[in-house]
Amino acid sequence: MGSYFKENKTRIISELSQWLSIPTISALPEFKPEIKRGTQWLSEHLEGIGLNNVEIIPTEQDAPPIVYADWLEAGSDKPTVLIYGHYDVQPADPIDEWVSAPFDPQVRDDKIYARGANDNKGQHFIILKAIEALLSEDKGKLPNIKLFLEGEEEVGGTHLEEFIKENSKKLSADICLIADTPMLGPDQPSIITGLRGLVYMELIVNSAKTDMHSGHYGGNVHNPIQVLSWILSKLKDENGKVLIPYFYDDVKEWSPKERAKINEVTMSEGEIIEHTGVRVLFGEEEYSPIERFGIRPTLDINGIWGGFSGEGPKTVIPKTAGAKVSIRMVAHQDPEKIEQSFKDYVTSITPKGVDIKFKTYSKEPAIIIDPSNKYFQTAVEALKDVFGKEPKFVMEGGSIPVGGHIKKYLDIDTIYMGFGLPDDNLHAPNEKFNLGMLDKGIETTIKFLKELT
Amino acid sequence: MGSYFKENKTRIISELSQWLSIPTISALPEFKPEIKRGTQWLSEHLEGIGLNNVEIIPTEQDAPPIVYADWLEAGSDKPTVLIYGHYDVQPADPIDEWVSAPFDPQVRDDKIYARGANDNKGQHFIILKAIEALLSEDKGKLPNIKLFLEGEEEVGGTHLEEFIKENSKKLSADICLIADTPMLGPDQPSIITGLRGLVYMELIVNSAKTDMHSGHYGGNVHNPIQVLSWILSKLKDENGKVLIPYFYDDVKEWSPKERAKINEVTMSEGEIIEHTGVRVLFGEEEYSPIERFGIRPTLDINGIWGGFSGEGPKTVIPKTAGAKVSIRMVAHQDPEKIEQSFKDYVTSITPKGVDIKFKTYSKEPAIIIDPSNKYFQTAVEALKDVFGKEPKFVMEGGSIPVGGHIKKYLDIDTIYMGFGLPDDNLHAPNEKFNLGMLDKGIETTIKFLKELT
Repeated sequence: MGSYFKENKTRIISELSQWLSIPTISALPEFKPEIKRGTQWLSEHLEGIGLNNVEIIPTEQDAPPIVYADWLEAGSDKPTVLIYGHYDVQPADPIDEWVSAPFDPQVRDDKIYARGANDNKGQHFIILKAIEALLSEDKGKLPNIKLFLEGEEEVGGTHLEEFIKENSKKLSADICLIADTPMLGPDQPSIITGLRGLVYMELIVNSAKTDMHSGHYGGNVHNPIQVLSWILSKLKDENGKVLIPYFYDDVKEWSPKERAKINEVTMSEGEIIEHTGVRVLFGEEEYSPIERFGIRPTLDINGIWGGFSGEGPKTVIPKTAGAKVSIRMVAHQDPEKIEQSFKDYVTSITPKGVDIKFKTYSKEPAIIIDPSNKYFQTAVEALKDVFGKEPKFVMEGGSIPVGGHIKKYLDIDTIYMGFGLPDDNLHAPNEKFNLGMLDKGIETTIKFLKELT
Repeated sequence: MGSYFKENKTRIISELSQWLSIPTISALPEFKPEIKRGTQWLSEHLEGIGLNNVEIIPTEQDAPPIVYADWLEAGSDKPTVLIYGHYDVQPADPIDEWVSAPFDPQVRDDKIYARGANDNKGQHFIILKAIEALLSEDKGKLPNIKLFLEGEEEVGGTHLEEFIKENSKKLSADICLIADTPMLGPDQPSIITGLRGLVYMELIVNSAKTDMHSGHYGGNVHNPIQVLSWILSKLKDENGKVLIPYFYDDVKEWSPKERAKINEVTMSEGEIIEHTGVRVLFGEEEYSPIERFGIRPTLDINGIWGGFSGEGPKTVIPKTAGAKVSIRMVAHQDPEKIEQSFKDYVTSITPKGVDIKFKTYSKEPAIIIDPSNKYFQTAVEALKDVFGKEPKFVMEGGSIPVGGHIKKYLDIDTIYMGFGLPDDNLHAPNEKFNLGMLDKGIETTIKFLKELT
């Protein structure tokens, strides 16, 4: 007998393609109508699979709404599973590097290509199809479900935290399930035992009231791009160490035994080189790649701009230049302290007479999951059953801020069980999702949910 | 009796406005049709003022053509003046900082605002109107004229040098006149005795074959923006010294007496602050602002790009980042040597495993003018007459590469007599030209030309 995916393959791929074809980009205001179209499509789909009380809940300042649905017919003796996902996707630029258009989903070589194919439409689609399978074929085996999907994940929106805080009763549950993380490989199941936190900031350097001609003023004035390069060059040294004072002060130290366990998961140099095309690895020498990924904090410049970037030369000294900088934090680091140290340090190294302004987009701590949690154990068993192999435990380098809010306001833990692969090109051109992982993901999630009833 | 400008003010402003309304931007391919429209307008205008043999001369690779015209009726006993200008303008971005649209010229407070109002349309318009005045009112007082205007000045095009080299007979003359430089102030005439050279380069840093998610790969790979910041931070130190090895080796040292003469021209801190809005000056401590401007080489980053620069956060590590860098050279520095030192140095400080590529847009030496030249003396007298004040001699910080080509291939000197002002916002939003300077410029140029017959 085939799996639920195999038995319904044509329909499921067609539905997922519909979902992926709606460019629900939250970062760019011009895509607002698509956000609306997306939430409408989603609501209809949630109703279609048999969920109740579907609602599109507006947020303040006309930000992307939250879509809610539930199914509470399992009875009060059964646990309630809260499911979170996000329907917004990253911008698709650089567009010209996509093999097929980002919002024209295409299946090639048993993979579906589109922006959001993994992050997060493909991933939450797994849970939707698992619920659909149980509602249509085995209703008695579904626990109570509360499901919400937000549209501001990719822009670090603040409305979700408000929503969770104000709706703690509506969202009350026994456990939260999120599919927004990768697996180690198609044949190596894994599950998340930790996630890095994220502080994301923008800095703008200004030196003058107008752009200047470099022939006239070159040699006599500060150039904001030069100033920015001085600042950014002092954020990280050429050994990969972050240079912000106090940055490493609170970082959790792991025992040799714990580090050995973490290193059971391999993340080889060859693997990273194959997936990214980098020619060498670069990071803290005294840690392995998997440790740098999971238990070490880091800092990256995610964007920079200033002056003339068109074709040809333009001899301008711009009045302003800017950059976006993100810090991935690990256990025990305090985002408030990190943000403040960053601002204090950057201000202290900015030359006199040059202004610097900061904007914070995100400020979320790292998360650590207790492996003795019974729901976690259920997930581990489900993975083992479907993949035929013991799942490995992974400290994940990415960040999912919502887990922290759920812990804080609903007082429940979260199971991070996603089915992406490391080469899925998240946030990059040619994002994809393997149909084999979609298949196994649905089977695993069905087993997990069934086991809770 | 009024000046030629005052007597024809409405017509002259209307003609100049027509000229300024054509967006002859050479840096952006989409403006190619406007280049064509511009050269047609210009040709008709040159014929209209009475010049002969008007030609639009195509260049290779369909680059902007050269417009030529002459008037050789003064007789072979009279000198021939070669006139150079450029009809192309800088891109207008950032557009939203213009008070009035860049290609919708407006007169406010006796100044005309538009892209190109100074550089170079307003400036060469002065010479055109001086020729027009003499041709219409005093033909016997005009020397022989050969005039050519190019369309690649703002992109450092290479076709002009070819053109001059191949047409040395057609362009043969006794002296060249160029209006493309500023005056010290509306009431302080000045004339150029030197110009800085220019090496303009682009550098592109690449570390991977694809953009990467900073959560997945942050801590394990090189970030090209971080690498670029390390490189750029090492180009200039925090005292304003360029750090490229051998950079200052050939720089002409000036005697205390020469430096005293150069410092007769004041360029005060207050002036620069007023014109640019910078809060402090920044440059080599041991030189005055006017020395840093005229006799000291410098380096500026004119543009930078990489990663995500849109609104909001995007957690990407881009595969590529780039910057544009220009070096202003002074007397005795060799552009070839400077370019090579720059490339060698940058390559030597680029981390292993990261690729760097260079592109050179411009490579022109500095120019020094001999004040004992008789045509230079004629220009000085004309300035003195019209402004009622002895002109000051200025070592100019900007670069006009064509002067070097004219010296090399035609073996004549160039008089750089322009009428811009330091606050004209060249290459920046709200570029303008003072109508009072247009007026005095035409009168001075008429006197200069008359004196040569």
